[in-house]
This record gives sequence, structure tokens and C-alpha cells, in this order.
Amino acid sequence: MTAPLRVALLGRGTVGSAVQRLIEEQADDLAARIGRPVELAGIAVRRPAHHTDVPEHLLTTDAAALVRRDDVDLVVEVIGGIEPARSLLYAALEAGKSVVSANKALLAEDGPGLHAAAAAAGVDLYYEAAVAGAIPLLRPLRESLAGDQLRRVVGIVNGTTNYILSRMAETGAGFAEALAEATELGYAEADPTADVDGFDAAAKAAILASLAFHTPVSAADVHREGISAVTATDVARAAEIGCTVKLLAICERVTDKPDGGAASDSVAVRVHPAMIPTTHPLASVGGAFNAVFVEAEAAGQLMFYGQGAGGEPTASAVLGDLVAVARNRVAGASGQGPTGYAALPVRPMAETPTRYHVSLDVADKPGVLATVAQEFAHHGVSISTVRQDGRDDAATLVLVTHSAPDAALSATIAALRDMPAVRGVTSVLRVEGLS
Amino acid sequence: MTAPLRVALLGRGTVGSAVQRLIEEQADDLAARIGRPVELAGIAVRRPAHHTDVPEHLLTTDAAALVRRDDVDLVVEVIGGIEPARSLLYAALEAGKSVVSANKALLAEDGPGLHAAAAAAGVDLYYEAAVAGAIPLLRPLRESLAGDQLRRVVGIVNGTTNYILSRMAETGAGFAEALAEATELGYAEADPTADVDGFDAAAKAAILASLAFHTPVSAADVHREGISAVTATDVARAAEIGCTVKLLAICERVTDKPDGGAASDSVAVRVHPAMIPTTHPLASVGGAFNAVFVEAEAAGQLMFYGQGAGGEPTASAVLGDLVAVARNRVAGASGQGPTGYAALPVRPMAETPTRYHVSLDVADKPGVLATVAQEFAHHGVSISTVRQDGRDDAATLVLVTHSAPDAALSATIAALRDMPAVRGVTSVLRVEGLS
Repeated sequence: MTAPLRVALLGRGTVGSAVQRLIEEQADDLAARIGRPVELAGIAVRRPAHHTDVPEHLLTTDAAALVRRDDVDLVVEVIGGIEPARSLLYAALEAGKSVVSANKALLAEDGPGLHAAAAAAGVDLYYEAAVAGAIPLLRPLRESLAGDQLRRVVGIVNGTTNYILSRMAETGAGFAEALAEATELGYAEADPTADVDGFDAAAKAAILASLAFHTPVSAADVHREGISAVTATDVARAAEIGCTVKLLAICERVTDKPDGGAASDSVAVRVHPAMIPTTHPLASVGGAFNAVFVEAEAAGQLMFYGQGAGGEPTASAVLGDLVAVARNRVAGASGQGPTGYAALPVRPMAETPTRYHVSLDVADKPGVLATVAQEFAHHGVSISTVRQDGRDDAATLVLVTHSAPDAALSATIAALRDMPAVRGVTSVLRVEGLS
Repeated sequence: MTAPLRVALLGRGTVGSAVQRLIEEQADDLAARIGRPVELAGIAVRRPAHHTDVPEHLLTTDAAALVRRDDVDLVVEVIGGIEPARSLLYAALEAGKSVVSANKALLAEDGPGLHAAAAAAGVDLYYEAAVAGAIPLLRPLRESLAGDQLRRVVGIVNGTTNYILSRMAETGAGFAEALAEATELGYAEADPTADVDGFDAAAKAAILASLAFHTPVSAADVHREGISAVTATDVARAAEIGCTVKLLAICERVTDKPDGGAASDSVAVRVHPAMIPTTHPLASVGGAFNAVFVEAEAAGQLMFYGQGAGGEPTASAVLGDLVAVARNRVAGASGQGPTGYAALPVRPMAETPTRYHVSLDVADKPGVLATVAQEFAHHGVSISTVRQDGRDDAATLVLVTHSAPDAALSATIAALRDMPAVRGVTSVLRVEGLS
């Protein structure tokens, strides 16, 4: 058989070890699929002493030298974070090596720059593992649906927050209690900020939106709210209206059609907790699973479901990419990269249409509902449903709005908080997927 | 811009019309994605008089001449059936045209031959639309999961039978009544044989198994049972044990480990109705939707969900393939084809491990359960659960077996039918997905 393709592996944590194992175990399969064998040329680690199970000649602490080595054809990066990963990937691409990465933070921050470097060198940059772990999602978005027009991509793309919200729904616990349990069981990291505050989901949303809408979107373009403000009351209120609370990454193409003007499209990308109907396909995605729901003009509704994290599932996605870039290398071609040709404007959250669920404690006397309804109308927000439950001299008012610009909705909530008749705003959460 | 890539469209029914419309409407997008514009060179139809909305110069009745024309780069086949589609595809491939097809029957019958012709000519043969309509499934199987080892692919891949079974569960109707309703509403064709008897699902199973296990599997290798024998009693019995009845296409890699011998793998591919737990992700796939559940060594459990049929969804899948083969043509390369290198043996149904649910009407007297249990034991089938409900002198016995070779299970059922103590076998159905 011909000479092997040689792979530099950057990082050997949970994912890196699984990638190494799969490359070794599946050697025959990989050779058959690619047309040439694949072998490891070297593994860059910080502390070689921690990797005594690896032949010493494979280990190096000098990742920068490894990615430039003449005997390296392909680079797999599973270090994560911005630096040194960014410099290493630019070095690899500029040296003509195709790159497979699982680095969502880096791709969300610098995707266009890295893609430009790959295109300039005529090599591939693939990163299926960066979003939703093992779920084949990026390739379908950028290839299978390439002849269609995407309207929405809505995903549960963070397993930690999904686990916490699932537990809150099951046990009635508050956020702090459910987080403590998740930490104890290893579902949340010691510092859970990246997950809980939505940074991880926002990076994935940026990558999904970029591919879905052929428009460069970075993590900084994504409106981001985490789940730490979600209360047991929010979760209970959701259940009362047949909904469940999920942290959603939502990427939408929004079409404006001004009176007499031409229609113009923009993209809105956001991460926030929302109530969704329990009948929605995403509602039953529990625990640490991920799922992404896609709406396309011609294809209609699609859903992709699977494990969003973990060494083995992530390594499976890395290997799929590795086969693709290796085959391209053998064929002397490069694969279908993402395209930013549409370059749609990114819409600010304030102007993005959303719907709210609001629960209010109000005085139970004549005219309160009218006053509250007037406040919504004053901000141009129309109400879809109202339920009032009286008890003694107080009442609970539960409202779900129709769609309105997010700024109008938040201004309405601020105004309600100041109304004398409103004793308290007990729950405010956006609603998605209601008809 | 450079000269356009020219497409020959074979067939202009529901799917063909939608393909034509998308090629025209998405012209700018397609050009940006591919790097060259795409335009129709001709459309082959049987009766040009039925297509007066198409410019006359595009229409031809001579498909064989069209696919060989020098000004045609790519061929899209949406005629369906074996001939003339088969001859046309061979002619197109041999003339050096890449082909996109939605033809499950042809691919299931002659996939290896067509792939060999494509490989010999150095062109592409893609057919995402042939299985599960718009759901991106074949590309993930053959590319995204290329570095993983697949264990099982289980799908609901026929919308007509899924609609009928869903209605039987919802209304308690029998098969004939639910079929009549489906026919009236246009969910079933006037001659429903291909759907109801499982031919359509078997063709899709053959394609899925071929890709999943890198082994040529044709429709003739697929064990096939339709849903016409499913009774209202079967559906009711399923509900009693927390299950629902679905027509499943099941592709499995089965590993034999004989005592002291080396492990050997084979593939088992079958289509039959089965009870699955209502908690299984496939159980909630209702109506005309399709879904495919995949289990891989590293990736774990994945599910793909979406519309399995219809002009627009199918056309979306065709366009995705068209973009891919057009890009390959522009790059002077060909894409990742399926590989048959594993060439695993196909296991006969008789030797395939399955589980059965059996409901019996028996005489309610001492010793009957022992006699029945003995019959199972005699055939080497062990019983997982038994429930006995007595009423007067009769009783209902509901058994679910553990996994055993299908032949042993069917022999057990035959023997039970002959037992004096068994007054009737009221329901027999295989069970999938129970732990």
C-alpha cells in the first residue's frame, strides 16, 4: 500500500485519547475508506510525564514545531481555547496541512480568518465536533441543505444546562440546588460559568448561524443570557401552560417587508432560556443529550439528536472529519467549505421579534387587568392569552404575548414593575415554538 | 462568470417540478455555492403536451440522447423504477456525467453496478433523496460517521405505513379501515402494495445497510414483512405493555463468538412491524414523518428526523446532492463514494436474533402455564415476562421473550398453535428496543 498519511494530534485529554485510540483501533477501516493508511506522526502535550502509556518518540511539548514538520499531512486540534490553538492552526494551515478541530470558542471567534487561511493554502478546515459532539450537523448544514434556504436553526447545544433544567423540572429544585447536584455528579465543571452563563452555547450558535445563513457571525454577535436567573417559579409556570424550560440557541433569518419597500433579510442569533411546548420535538430532549431543530424552505422541519459531549462521541466526529480531509488530500482536492457570500446584517436583539410569558401578582380589584393590558398596548405589544386566578384580595395574572420586538417587550416589563397595581413580577421568560 | 454547468433533468412529476423550480429560484445562491452557475440543458418527459408551462426547447422525449449530449454536465434522475432509469443512468455515467438520483428501487437492486460504473468514469453518483426524503442521512452515514463503527440503524422510513399504524393506535381501527382512510386522504396510493407490503422500506433498508456496513446489500437480501397482518388486537396489546407498533427497517451488525473460535460479524437486514416502547425516540414519530435511529460504537445514539416524502422535501435533498456533485465537477474531483470493502455475509432471517410478544387464549386450569413455558424452553427460547389474566374458565397469557434466533421463535409459535390447551394465538409481534 502507499505511504501513510501522517497526523499530528494537538492535545491528549479525554477527546485526544479517544481520537488516538480510534486511529489505532480502526486502522484497517480507515485505510480502506481513505485509500491510504493513517498514522500518528506526533502528539503535542504539555506534560509528557502524564502520558507514559504513549511511545515516547510520539510525544512532544513543541506543538509549533510539530504542525510545521514536513512529515505531517494533517493536524487534529483538541486543545480548546483561543491560544495557543489559534497560532497553531494558522501555522498548520499556512504550512499546507489540512486541519480538523473541535474548538468551538476559536471557530466562533475567528472562523472567517481561519477559513481564509485554509482557502489561501488550498487545504481543508473541518470542525464537526465543535458543535453538538457526535451529531452530524455541520456537514448536513453546509452540504446536504446547500440547495435549500434555511429559516431557523434552534438547538439544545449545552448538556450541562440541559441537565440542570431537566432536574429543576423533575424535582422542583431551584437553580442553585440543581447546579450543586450537577457539579457533584460531574455534569458541571468546578467553574460552570462557560456553560451556565451561555458562553458555550453562544459560540455554537455563532458557528451554526454562519453555516446556515452563509454569513459571518461571531460569538460577539450573539445575544446571550444564561440560566442562573431561571427560578423554580419559572419552571412551574411553564408546566402550567403546557411548556418546559430549555436553554435554546436560536438562529433565525428575519425578513422585513416595509410598506412599499423591498424585502430585506437579516439574521438574529441568540441564546437564552425559553419556554417551549411539551409537544415540541426539542421538549423531550433530556439530560446531557443535544438536539438541533432545523426549518428549511423546501426540506421543512428536520431534527438531529444525539450525545453532545464526551470523549468517545466527540472523537467519532473528529474521525469523520479526518476521513474526509484525508480523502481530499489523497484526491488532491479540498472539500466544500462554508461560504460567507450572503453576508446578511446581524440584527440587534432589541429589534428581534420574540414572545414573552409574564406572571404578575396584582391587586384583585376592578380595572387592574385593563391597566395592565393598556401598558402592553402602549408599547405596541399584543397579548395572545391571559389567565387570571383570584385569591382573597390578590390575583395572579399570567400573560403570553404575540411576537414583538424584544425591546418593546422588555420596556413593557420594566413599566409593569413600576405600576402600583402590580405587586410583583413573579416570572418573565421568553416563549418559543407556540403557534 | 464562467460558463454554466448544464443539468439534464429526467422526469418532471412532483419532485422533478420542484427540482426545476429550486434550480431557477435559487440560481444566485447555487452559483455562489458552486462557483459556477447551474442551468437546465433539457428535461426528458414522456408527454410534452402535459408540460406546457416549460419552454418548448427544453423538453424532449428522447432521454437516452439527452443524457449523452456534450452540453450536459450533470444528470438528475427522478423517474423512479428500474427501467428505463437503469439504462439511462449507465449511459450517463459512461458518458462521464455525474448523476443525482432519487431512485431507491434502482439503487437497492443495482447499487454496486452503478457505483462501479461511476468509479470507472471518475464521476459521482449521489442519492440522498432515495431514503427518508429531505432528511440528511446518507451523507452523515457515509462521511460523518466514517471513522466510527456502526452497530445498528433502525428507521421508520415509510410514511404511508406509519400514518396507517398511527391511525390504528389513535382510533382503534383495524388495518383495512385505516388503509381506506389513508387512501381517501391521499396518504396511500391507489395500489398501496409497495408501501403496505414493505417493498419501499426494504429498498431503503438495503441502501442504508450497504452504506452503514460497507457491504453490498440488495433488496433481495432483506427479510420483508408488511403491515397488512397487523390487527387492532396487536395494537391494543402493544399499548398494554407500554409499546406502540411501527413498521421498522432494521439493519444490524451481528457478532458471533463461538466457543473457542474467533468472533465473526455478519449483517442482518429486515423490515417488519414491531412493538417498541413508547419511551423510545422512534415511538413518537407520527403520521407521515420519517426518522432513523443510529447506534455507533463511539458516537453512541443518534437520531435523524424529518419529512420522508413530498415534492419539496425530496427536491431539497436532490439539490443538496446537485451542489456537491457540481462542486466536485468544478474542482475536477469526485466525492466520497460508498465502499463495499467489508463485504460481510448477510445473515438469514432464521438465524437473526429477535424477540417476540405473544398473546394466547388458554384454558384457565392448573398446568397450562407450565406446558406453555415448556414449549418455549424446548425451542431454546427463554421468557422475559409473563402476565396471566384469568376470567371464568379461560385466561389470557401475554409473554415477551428474550432474544433468540427467529426460526426458534417462529417454531415455538407454530407448536403453540397446535397445543390443546391453547385455544388461540391472538397476537404475535416482534419486539424491539426493550431493555
